[in-house]
Formats: sequence, C-alpha cells, structure tokens
Amino acid sequence: MNSKVEKIPRATIKRLAIYVQTLERMSRDGVELISSEALAQACAVNASQIRKDLTYFGEFGVRGVGYNIEGLIASIRQALYIDRPWNCALVGVGNLGRALLNHREFKQRQYNIVAAFDCDPFKIGTEVSGMEVMCSRRMAEVLAGKNVKIGIVTTPPDRAQRVANYLVEAGVRGILNYASVHIFTPEDVFVENVDFFNHLYALSFNISQKSR
Amino acid sequence: MNSKVEKIPRATIKRLAIYVQTLERMSRDGVELISSEALAQACAVNASQIRKDLTYFGEFGVRGVGYNIEGLIASIRQALYIDRPWNCALVGVGNLGRALLNHREFKQRQYNIVAAFDCDPFKIGTEVSGMEVMCSRRMAEVLAGKNVKIGIVTTPPDRAQRVANYLVEAGVRGILNYASVHIFTPEDVFVENVDFFNHLYALSFNISQKSR
Repeated sequence: MNSKVEKIPRATIKRLAIYVQTLERMSRDGVELISSEALAQACAVNASQIRKDLTYFGEFGVRGVGYNIEGLIASIRQALYIDRPWNCALVGVGNLGRALLNHREFKQRQYNIVAAFDCDPFKIGTEVSGMEVMCSRRMAEVLAGKNVKIGIVTTPPDRAQRVANYLVEAGVRGILNYASVHIFTPEDVFVENVDFFNHLYALSFNISQKSR
Repeated sequence: MNSKVEKIPRATIKRLAIYVQTLERMSRDGVELISSEALAQACAVNASQIRKDLTYFGEFGVRGVGYNIEGLIASIRQALYIDRPWNCALVGVGNLGRALLNHREFKQRQYNIVAAFDCDPFKIGTEVSGMEVMCSRRMAEVLAGKNVKIGIVTTPPDRAQRVANYLVEAGVRGILNYASVHIFTPEDVFVENVDFFNHLYALSFNISQKSR
C-alpha cells in the first residue's frame, strides 16, 4: 500500500465503493477492458471525476484503451481493505435482522455474520440462518477470540445505544447502525448509519418541490 | 411555505431529517424546549451548524430559552413535505422486502406501503403483512388511481432496472433503491440509494486505517 492511498478522502471512498460494485458486475458479464467514459456512464458519475479518483490506481489505465477491469477491481479492493474477510456480529433479530442474516450478498462479499444476539427470551436459543440467537448480555464472552470487528445494529431505536455499548465492550471497531437514532461511541469506533427515513424524506421533498 | 424554504440545499435536507427525528424522540420523552447546544449534542452536529440550518425556522428560537420543540417539529415537517401521508409501492418480496412490509416505522411516519409486487409465481397471490402480492407486470394497472408517488425496490440487482422502468410507467416520482446497482430514471424521477455495502466498505477502510 503506498502513502497516496492512505489519504483517500471520505467522498472518494463512497465513489470507489460504487465503482468496484459496478466493475464486479461488468466482470461477471465478461467485460475485460473499460474506458473511463463507459464506467462513468454506468456509475452515473462524470468521467473526469472517475479519472481523478482512479489516479490512485493509475497503473491500470492505458490511454485510448481503458482500464483493465480485473486489475482495477483487485487494486480498489486492496485499497479499501475489502479484499479480506470481515467477521461481523448482528444484534436485534427482528424482521430486518432476520433479513440481513439471510442476505446472500453479505457472505458473497466476505462480510461473515458469525453471531446473532437479541434480548428477547423467546428469541434466545432459537436458530436463524443456521445460527443460535444468543443473549445480548453475553456478547463480550461469546465474541471473545472471534476477531469480530464490525457490529450490525438492527434493534428498535431505544435499545440501540445499549447494544452499541455492549459491542464496543466486546471489541468491535465499527458499527453499521440501522436504528434511526444517533449512536455515541468512543472516538476510535466508527459508526455508519443506514437511515431509510432520511432517504424517504429527501424523496418527499424533491418530488414536492418538482411538482410545485 | 415561504420562498426561503424552496432553496434548502441537499445537505441541509439530510440534517433536517436527522433533527426532526431527534426532536420527535425528545418530544415523546416530554421535553418542550431545547437549546441549539443540546440539540447539537444529541444529533452529533456542531451547534453553529444547527443554528444556521434552523434560520429557515427562526421564529421558534428564543434567545437564552431555546426552541419550542413542537413548533419546530411541525415547521420542519411542513418544509420537508413530510407532514402528509405518502403512498408507496414495494417491489421484490424477498427477506428484505418482507422486513420492510412489516416495519412499523413506515406506517408511523405516514409512508404507507399500499401494494407489493414480485415476479415469482410462487409468491404472487400470497399474503404479506395483510397485502396480496401482485405480479410486477400488472403494476401500472394495479397502481392506477392509488396516488403512489414512491416506489421501493428490494429485488436482486439484476431485476432492479426493469422494475424501476415499471414503476416509472406506473407514475412513481421517486424510488428508494435497496438493490446494490445504479438505476437509471427520467430526469424528473428521483432515486435514493440505500446501499449497505458502501457503508460496510467505509467501515472496513476506516477500521483498517486506524489500526495501521
């Protein structure tokens, strides 16, 4: 990893995540080379932005020919540290939690959910997606030695902070939060919020403005 | 609605969506007045940013006293056009689609999913969350006259563009896209992407950079 890669700004990370997903789909479709214009169109980003973002991986671009897709995918995956498996724990085995536990793409992308927790005594001990649901209070004990760095929170909003605290105690370094509430963590534990309603509110606003 | 409100920038919309959710929770907890500092802390945004964002709703702030929560909520909800019900249609009744159909918060926030579609003959005609799953091809016919402005796409990635086309034909003006693929729509149809993996990739990157 060269020093340039360390300084990839946040907005670029998000775009790289989009590029790599698009490139992987193209690769599955048998495409081997792609121009920045074609990639730009597929990702709905402008071509000069893509060329700028891909300067981190410049060696895969050949003027007039385009980028070698496999090389570019491998390089972006390495730069984002997603070329390796990540163990995750999920907390909150409701409908959404169950859907994520059964979501094939997590495993396909090497995000392995290795433990599922809930505080409901009627759920503890049941099996979901081949895993036994464990009591949330036992999190630190259950996760010990499992190298789980990412926690996925799918509890109701009023339980989210408590389970986040448990996850941090258990050694998790990043939280994917589906509860529509802000979670506070120590400075070195990252939180990414998946908030459906922010998106719905943006749609309502945009649709209404457009039709005024 | 005054003319100032029309010009709320995109980033502000996202923050307003966070403020209103936080304020609603505080209101449920019985809080009536709040300072910009306390709201800032609860939303993890800095106080001067909040004060700037709330200049659109300035009449609810009293110096040294704070904002009247109920008034502020009502005003933000009106500005975002989320003070009214929105009819939605969901396409793709897999695990995630099922979880969203059963998600109480959609109804609580007046996002009413009034129709569910799938192209799987084994799913068509079954009932989910009190609704009969309909064939995706019948979308325009089924949605006619139902005032459905928002479509929710929870299909596998390779089906997402086709169902988006159906939704647009059926008169939808905004799409909440959970499929991890870019969807193309006419210029006046808005798309919001809920991409779990962009968030996971950002976590992987941040965690790895931190522990280098």
